[in-house]
Amino acid sequence: MKELDMGICSIDTLKASGYREGKYGVTILYHENSTAAAVYTSNQVYAAPISITRKHIADGNISAILINSGNANCYTKEEGIEKGLELAQLVADDLNIPLEDVAVCSTGVIGRQMPLDILKPVAIKSLEKLSNSRQNATDAAQAIMTTDTVKKECAVESTLKDGTKFKVAGICKGSGMIAPNMGTMLGFITTDVSFNKDTLQTALNKAVEKSFNMVVVDGDESTNDTVILMATNDVEAEYDENFQEALDYVCMSLAKQIAKDGEGAQKFMEVTCKGARSQNDAILVSKSIVSSSLVKTALKGADPNWGRIISAMGYSGVEFDPDNVSISISSKTDTAIIVDKGYVTTYDDEGILEKAENIMKQKDVFIKVNLHDGDYSATSYGCDLTCEYVHINADYTT
Amino acid sequence: MKELDMGICSIDTLKASGYREGKYGVTILYHENSTAAAVYTSNQVYAAPISITRKHIADGNISAILINSGNANCYTKEEGIEKGLELAQLVADDLNIPLEDVAVCSTGVIGRQMPLDILKPVAIKSLEKLSNSRQNATDAAQAIMTTDTVKKECAVESTLKDGTKFKVAGICKGSGMIAPNMGTMLGFITTDVSFNKDTLQTALNKAVEKSFNMVVVDGDESTNDTVILMATNDVEAEYDENFQEALDYVCMSLAKQIAKDGEGAQKFMEVTCKGARSQNDAILVSKSIVSSSLVKTALKGADPNWGRIISAMGYSGVEFDPDNVSISISSKTDTAIIVDKGYVTTYDDEGILEKAENIMKQKDVFIKVNLHDGDYSATSYGCDLTCEYVHINADYTT
Repeated sequence: MKELDMGICSIDTLKASGYREGKYGVTILYHENSTAAAVYTSNQVYAAPISITRKHIADGNISAILINSGNANCYTKEEGIEKGLELAQLVADDLNIPLEDVAVCSTGVIGRQMPLDILKPVAIKSLEKLSNSRQNATDAAQAIMTTDTVKKECAVESTLKDGTKFKVAGICKGSGMIAPNMGTMLGFITTDVSFNKDTLQTALNKAVEKSFNMVVVDGDESTNDTVILMATNDVEAEYDENFQEALDYVCMSLAKQIAKDGEGAQKFMEVTCKGARSQNDAILVSKSIVSSSLVKTALKGADPNWGRIISAMGYSGVEFDPDNVSISISSKTDTAIIVDKGYVTTYDDEGILEKAENIMKQKDVFIKVNLHDGDYSATSYGCDLTCEYVHINADYTT
Repeated sequence: MKELDMGICSIDTLKASGYREGKYGVTILYHENSTAAAVYTSNQVYAAPISITRKHIADGNISAILINSGNANCYTKEEGIEKGLELAQLVADDLNIPLEDVAVCSTGVIGRQMPLDILKPVAIKSLEKLSNSRQNATDAAQAIMTTDTVKKECAVESTLKDGTKFKVAGICKGSGMIAPNMGTMLGFITTDVSFNKDTLQTALNKAVEKSFNMVVVDGDESTNDTVILMATNDVEAEYDENFQEALDYVCMSLAKQIAKDGEGAQKFMEVTCKGARSQNDAILVSKSIVSSSLVKTALKGADPNWGRIISAMGYSGVEFDPDNVSISISSKTDTAIIVDKGYVTTYDDEGILEKAENIMKQKDVFIKVNLHDGDYSATSYGCDLTCEYVHINADYTT
């Protein structure tokens, strides 16, 4: 597997574009008769574009994805559906494809109708730029940003077991409202393989489970989350594990980019729970730690206050023996084992706390806990909680 | 029912004291042969004092409660139990009561052994001051504080249905790590009635359910939470609803005081969910809103971004029809109805958003949602999320 540097345009036959005016942006991804699968938010209150895309993608066939930032088109009733379709129609007409082959996604403020007088001209300018180039890949990744501070993209080339070469490329946006189960997260993955829609769906579910669903910024789950996987069918191929590996790699890379760019985040943390009795237990423990406001502020303050870690484990809802747990904190180069099968090493050796404090000062911190109770493990991704998070979110709509 | 101004010492025969040196404080509440009931944290990792108190309170009889701040005595193994008992023995010896009649509670940093060389002299000084006075009530409420900025107390006098007068008085501490199900929250309620331990336990469970368990500051649930109800048996009495009402009143007053003094909190919010299909649904919806980082920061920024409210309702896990929901935001004197049975009033009348913004600027904000789907309701209490919260928690142990 090797990384490619053309972003979403690493798939040669894909055309992409992005255009922004102020807080409103429109990104378009275009490849006629692509096979597609998608995963959506589990929030019961979901936005109009999700209703539209669910319908349009049901037959597994789309030709374009239209994404707008600046307005979520959520809690907008029938008018929201109509306006979403009106914008999609504009794209369909321009590209000469059926309306039903356009998937739509939105991100922005909830509970306001889409300002089509602003969005339509932006969409037209975006359409005019459609092509395959490094600049277009960048534009596409940037026009979907809201409170994101950097564009997020990843692309790889790999080979199936029979030697067939294939590519997977993706962009995403997401910075706040990132929670268990995909908070305001939009992800668009393209590949050149020729799998059917069910195979794509299964592969996407697996990849999302361990990537986007393991990112926590603030614990709020959005109404608009969507990840679409779109296959151009350029390469005749049969699914095997090597494809899954490449798709997982791209999704996990994008997920980590989201955690690192969490609203106001200055630091990144990766929390692994090992030795759990079930996959779900491992996920619950890992997410409980990565979501804890007290762990997040400890990370901010470079404070090795591991009591907050064991406490977050304790209220995760997972049964385990506190006296048989191990906890360590690591940087990329150093590890401090703080609890070793229930034995608190710092009671005898104050130096370990000092070491842990130095590790907590690093930009990337890795927390590992082991329940020593089974074979399952899970890793989640998060960031510190800072004043900037408060500022960003105290002033978002006004 | 009338409020009393003697705090915990409103119960005449109770002796109380509090003494503090630096971050270490000791509060003692003393009345021989009291009947008692308690509620503890549901965190699986619970502190040594909880093990001790569970055992000592099992027979429903205690004579004293010893509370220390500065060290949580949690994740301290056998040594923690021994040190907790050693401190309790000091109190038992001084008061000439059995060790088994002393309940103990701790609050502070997790994962460090109790510094008895510091805590013993503080406990002795506290014991020396035991008496019934306004000053002692204040000292008792203050010595249990950690990051609390104000002491928290409430006392009332009321009458049972047969005309018997009785009193209920309480103090508590709690400021951060306040979550669904009592985060680092210690509460001590005394009353002069003569109920048996089972009656006290049932009454306490009911009161805690709608008070302390409905407070959310940061979503972290502590290892040490305890609420003890201690009855002096001075007043021969049979339980009736009037007692429950008084106990509820005291517990809810204390719970609101905790929310108002949430770490870094500048504003208070009360979130009521009505029209739910079950009590649990009402609680889940109400707590999902009050816990949302995005709602908390919107409160901080006086931003009537009600999309965050509907979104938090949507991921609460409760089934409801988004198109049949009502949402209003109120101050003590004004109300803005933003969604009326699914109809977004602000689409037609921008003035309502302005009104809502003015309401959000008030110190106390009341959010009401109605699912129009049943007869159950629940109210939770919370606060805004501020930079001060981050500062307090980024620098707590170091």
